[in-house]
Amino acid sequence: MTRQMHLALFVTADGIHQGGWRHPQASDADQGFGFYRRLAAQAEAAKLDMLFVADKLAVDDLYGNHFATTVRYRASRGTEPLTLLSALAVTTERIGLGGTISTSYTEPYHVARMFASIDHLSGGRAAWNAVTSVSDAEAHNFGRTEHYDHATRYDRAAEYLNVVRRLWDTWEEDAIAPDKAAGTYGDLTKVHYADHAGKWFDVKGPLSLPRPPQGHPVLIQAGASGAFQDLATRNAEVVFAVYPDIDRAKAGYRSFKDDVAAAGRSPDAVKILPGMVPIIADSDDAAADLLGELDALVEPLAGLSFMSGSMNYDLADHALDEPVPDIRDLIRGSKGRFHYVIGKAIEEGWTFADLGRWYGSSLSFAKMVGSPRTVADEMERWLVEEACDGFVVMPAFMPAGVDRMLRDVVPLLQSRGVFRHDYAASTLRGHLGLDRPANSFHV
Amino acid sequence: MTRQMHLALFVTADGIHQGGWRHPQASDADQGFGFYRRLAAQAEAAKLDMLFVADKLAVDDLYGNHFATTVRYRASRGTEPLTLLSALAVTTERIGLGGTISTSYTEPYHVARMFASIDHLSGGRAAWNAVTSVSDAEAHNFGRTEHYDHATRYDRAAEYLNVVRRLWDTWEEDAIAPDKAAGTYGDLTKVHYADHAGKWFDVKGPLSLPRPPQGHPVLIQAGASGAFQDLATRNAEVVFAVYPDIDRAKAGYRSFKDDVAAAGRSPDAVKILPGMVPIIADSDDAAADLLGELDALVEPLAGLSFMSGSMNYDLADHALDEPVPDIRDLIRGSKGRFHYVIGKAIEEGWTFADLGRWYGSSLSFAKMVGSPRTVADEMERWLVEEACDGFVVMPAFMPAGVDRMLRDVVPLLQSRGVFRHDYAASTLRGHLGLDRPANSFHV
Repeated sequence: MTRQMHLALFVTADGIHQGGWRHPQASDADQGFGFYRRLAAQAEAAKLDMLFVADKLAVDDLYGNHFATTVRYRASRGTEPLTLLSALAVTTERIGLGGTISTSYTEPYHVARMFASIDHLSGGRAAWNAVTSVSDAEAHNFGRTEHYDHATRYDRAAEYLNVVRRLWDTWEEDAIAPDKAAGTYGDLTKVHYADHAGKWFDVKGPLSLPRPPQGHPVLIQAGASGAFQDLATRNAEVVFAVYPDIDRAKAGYRSFKDDVAAAGRSPDAVKILPGMVPIIADSDDAAADLLGELDALVEPLAGLSFMSGSMNYDLADHALDEPVPDIRDLIRGSKGRFHYVIGKAIEEGWTFADLGRWYGSSLSFAKMVGSPRTVADEMERWLVEEACDGFVVMPAFMPAGVDRMLRDVVPLLQSRGVFRHDYAASTLRGHLGLDRPANSFHV
Repeated sequence: MTRQMHLALFVTADGIHQGGWRHPQASDADQGFGFYRRLAAQAEAAKLDMLFVADKLAVDDLYGNHFATTVRYRASRGTEPLTLLSALAVTTERIGLGGTISTSYTEPYHVARMFASIDHLSGGRAAWNAVTSVSDAEAHNFGRTEHYDHATRYDRAAEYLNVVRRLWDTWEEDAIAPDKAAGTYGDLTKVHYADHAGKWFDVKGPLSLPRPPQGHPVLIQAGASGAFQDLATRNAEVVFAVYPDIDRAKAGYRSFKDDVAAAGRSPDAVKILPGMVPIIADSDDAAADLLGELDALVEPLAGLSFMSGSMNYDLADHALDEPVPDIRDLIRGSKGRFHYVIGKAIEEGWTFADLGRWYGSSLSFAKMVGSPRTVADEMERWLVEEACDGFVVMPAFMPAGVDRMLRDVVPLLQSRGVFRHDYAASTLRGHLGLDRPANSFHV
């Protein structure tokens, strides 16, 4: 059987291309829950593996040390992942539900409990993208003057993941066995203290919810740095990768799978899904024109403001017409990704305005531009050439950016046998072909 | 027009009477989301003001310093309020959605954001019951060896409420004004830093979500101590009160409303809703029999285990046949409530087994036992005699405990003009007759 790809849909109110919301085809209706409900139904009808909701714990204000550019040019229309995914859990039936929650500014007991609850609400479709946060703006909302340094936050994250998984295991599947006549409710031998005492956390447990239907909700991680790769090879079940082109993707894919094997896990136990931004029109020429229209609508400051937050570095220290110098050592946020981005800017001889426009167009993800056939060809090529196990589809704008992908590209992938015609499972682990984890209390 | 009562439904999987789950009429089906969805639909069809989901951040293990009694006799089947309310927000249309979240073991930025999100998802129907937590079991899940003392946690709560309300105000209603042609998205003059720097919290803001539809989700508080009353008179919009009988309720109601007025607020700005446990059957005699059946099913250790958690005091230090001595000074959890409970036990000459059975029957809330007419009479009497502004209906067992209340008692209240026939508003503030708060940035 042909290898099939996995597809996640990156859910936003107005797409990731920073000119997207200004395009005439973009919706300007209020993006209430009805929008998300319809989008989820569309993605489920197309048999996608999962919906994915990103997160940031602040309104970006790194650029110029104020939120002005963020608010003026493209204020976050904000979603809160846990509440949105809970709502989508009960308006969908089969599609997975992934969301980002930071390990730096939350407590493992809450996060374990909420993802367990979403897994229960959805019958086993929850996934957690565990990130370490990026910016001082986030630190400022949680009593810190600056964000944890890179090594420190990965150290905290590693311990955090262990606590959460241990909490998920504290109730065995058959721990609740009510016997009305005897008056006994739970089986004492099947409930356990987590008894975690560590450097960052002391968490006794047990969790106040039964074990999630998936055992553990699926663990997603996203990043590119060495510290990320080290943590993810040992823990992640899905990786949201940032590869701007197939060559970098192939090299990254191979290196990551090798590291997973070296860590003693099966390479198949981790699915690598690079983000891809589809720009689709009736013909390749029309798609190129559409991208041109979108790119012309990017305000460079919108791109730079967003970049500043993600780099945790104030790009307003540089004039817009200044050529980008080597500031790679100053990155305190997403190191791996922006090491590449700044390197590319230097190589291309870009000014900061050029950089802002370029970043605003794709956030450094791979763009796939063309007719439905061209985009399907490219996606298939990435799969066949082992550049990925599938994609996170990141619509440039809404709703047009997602409509054509689901309506025109997915059926082509299905007809070629590289994407499912229907769900074969009822859980996200089932869709992804991931094993259900054993309970760590069974040794 | 006759004064009308407000009704909230206390949502649990199996009722609050600790013999309830063992009763032959109690459902023994798995309580998945379908159960909550149907219950919410029933309550909405009966035009109740709101659903309410309580919370505790641990499996009680105060009794005997282990979770054994809790698990053995009636393990919490656990709901997580924020995820459950989010799901109910999109499966209901008019009913309010209240939930407990502790101020002691959470961060105001997260809590402000999640309740804002639920208010958006529901179109203005969210309410937050801000509690300070009660037990060391909760502390142990968040890195502390014991729970904050009473004064400290109320000090933290007071500051916490101010931070949350300030965050809800950071985006003015018309701050988002996208102009595709100009490329501008938000109005800078209408977005604000919270800039809170305090004893407990430093939170810069702004929140990453627009202002909630209600301005602020409704603020509920529950408690009975002096520290509680001091905080609640200044802040609460709904009080969930614990009054075991109408005389105590009348005195408490008058005292609380006087204190609200003394704090410079309108007494109408706070709705006092005592918890009430309806025990309904075709006749008064049959209801008394039903209560007898339920009470006979209470395991004393179940009551004592639950009490220990709420008191934050280990009642296993006492033999079951020991008469209850004066241990009121040892209560470190819910002080006001258990000062009364222990006082009553001493007065009645109860042993600890008697106390466990009594507490397991009602958790010290008022029971109203009888035919639908008798229960409606009693509820009307509390309203007319100014013992309350309505009730939190706490079913003893499920689903029978709620079915008869909604099907048989509510229509009687409606026919007497003391409860609404239909919703007149679309928000919870509207149902409760509470003003929409002004934005604190408009001075």
